[in-house]
Amino acid sequence: MQRAHTLLEHEIIARYFSQHSAGADVEIGVGDDAAVVQPPDGSKLVMTMDALNEGVHFRPDCRPEDLGHKVLAVNLSDLAAMGATPLWATLSLSLPEIEDSWLAGFSRGLYSLADRYNTKIIGGDLVRGARSVSMQATGYLKSADAITRTGARPKDTLYVTGTLGDAALYLKLSQNLEDLTASKQDMDYLSARLNRPWPRVEVGQEIVALASAAIDLSDGLVLDVQRILQGSGVGARIELEQLPRSRAMHRQWQDGEDWNLVLAGGDDYELAFTASPEHGAEIDTISARTGCPVTRVGEITREASLELFLGGRSYPLPDRPGFEHFV
Amino acid sequence: MQRAHTLLEHEIIARYFSQHSAGADVEIGVGDDAAVVQPPDGSKLVMTMDALNEGVHFRPDCRPEDLGHKVLAVNLSDLAAMGATPLWATLSLSLPEIEDSWLAGFSRGLYSLADRYNTKIIGGDLVRGARSVSMQATGYLKSADAITRTGARPKDTLYVTGTLGDAALYLKLSQNLEDLTASKQDMDYLSARLNRPWPRVEVGQEIVALASAAIDLSDGLVLDVQRILQGSGVGARIELEQLPRSRAMHRQWQDGEDWNLVLAGGDDYELAFTASPEHGAEIDTISARTGCPVTRVGEITREASLELFLGGRSYPLPDRPGFEHFV
Repeated sequence: MQRAHTLLEHEIIARYFSQHSAGADVEIGVGDDAAVVQPPDGSKLVMTMDALNEGVHFRPDCRPEDLGHKVLAVNLSDLAAMGATPLWATLSLSLPEIEDSWLAGFSRGLYSLADRYNTKIIGGDLVRGARSVSMQATGYLKSADAITRTGARPKDTLYVTGTLGDAALYLKLSQNLEDLTASKQDMDYLSARLNRPWPRVEVGQEIVALASAAIDLSDGLVLDVQRILQGSGVGARIELEQLPRSRAMHRQWQDGEDWNLVLAGGDDYELAFTASPEHGAEIDTISARTGCPVTRVGEITREASLELFLGGRSYPLPDRPGFEHFV
Repeated sequence: MQRAHTLLEHEIIARYFSQHSAGADVEIGVGDDAAVVQPPDGSKLVMTMDALNEGVHFRPDCRPEDLGHKVLAVNLSDLAAMGATPLWATLSLSLPEIEDSWLAGFSRGLYSLADRYNTKIIGGDLVRGARSVSMQATGYLKSADAITRTGARPKDTLYVTGTLGDAALYLKLSQNLEDLTASKQDMDYLSARLNRPWPRVEVGQEIVALASAAIDLSDGLVLDVQRILQGSGVGARIELEQLPRSRAMHRQWQDGEDWNLVLAGGDDYELAFTASPEHGAEIDTISARTGCPVTRVGEITREASLELFLGGRSYPLPDRPGFEHFV
């Protein structure tokens, strides 16, 4: 379809995606066949890639600012779960057509978060197709080894950052707006938790030498913690009362079913990690220094199974422990 | 849709996408939040990202082997155009449903090319959605600087690798199979040129210290060469008779219109590069050593415009100089 104000691909890239791609570590940024970057001397690099598809990961009416923020946030969250410091990202954006206002919003959301974490968007690809965005991000490890999913040991404490289930609660409440009891303020808070998650980059960097295992909670607490347990060959006990819940969640709390939001809601982008009890005081200090709540929610056990407890009694695992794309 | 043989995401990844992700330079490959890799000491890294969408870049009946090959090939082609040696790639694969035979074919095509160029597939993402594949690739520069689009100088020779227009000729012939005059052998050759392009990795590595500018010919000769000319602030003369054409192209040659296939067809994934005439003999040697044809097709000029010549006469630029997504 010929349009009156057709922009060529390189014009779109120059207008919306050429900010801040240069820097001391970026010799060639956006605009050539590829970018040229200089990794920190002797460091290990950490690389991840995540995609968001319209209709699957975001709704057609998703604000472009939110999408630009979120696609970087979910990738930085993966880097945080390894204990890495972000460096660079590349972007592949698929759009059915060029809309200036959409692109302006998307790039605003993207670069705003990129600036916050000093991440350079060094290149990418712009193609026609269903609305979808893929991003690859690279970080580096300052000195310690990466935090994997395989190092949890019996008696380690299990921690989570922030609060759980807010994104899932927002989706639940949005499905029944007629009977909505939540305040606008709570809905705004919950919406931001779903649409503009803050990756726990600082916490990841600070725990890199202390944590024995870590994962980011993208698919739901139970599913993601089980990945640590399977990777490490251990089990865990989780006390439901200790799971951190936001004030908005407490105000909307209805019954036992809402534990499913907390246990299996997904899209939280918090970190779950394990550490030896001897590091407890240091982790409290990290929580205070970063301003990010870090809560003890359970303990790693020798038996290779996950057990939930509520009021001293065993509590069943959710039927569906988290988000699986092809189930 | 619940399926009898539903595989969970980590099972799909373990089955199809966990080959060869380890290696001396890959400390953690597929399976954690992110991969951990060790860049060569003191080297610069080169990073690129390219996506292929069904219905835009490939047809719904595209063989999965071909798609797995091509998505890596187009990224390695970008690395080659910078003179880089491939190291690692991450993959984001979006599929409407899980089909074992499709995934087996895709991964066969992907890993076959990855092995050929010692590229480790270190991570990625598998999501539900329209069929689409994004890939990010990282390479490194052994010693010389990258070859950019900005270094061409007047009197430099303009070269292209391989032959031009084969992919576009295949698409043209496929549209009218009833009147097909090409042999099956020619059609197989042309189909492979479209669907299984060979990135010119060796040539890129060998010319890195000689070439003054380079680009990979993904969108069409005229459009891509103009990117070098604009980047370098120069012009060029191209002699059409010198443009390298395959035997299949010669056998199908019909009239002047077929110059458009050669000049603007796109999807060639050959390299265009410029070098000072003093390097002519070395470049002939590189062509012989790599087994890749490298042909002189023109000369860089001071006037900032591209001029085509045929039989000593000026020849008009194509109306549509190459592939633009949003025009």
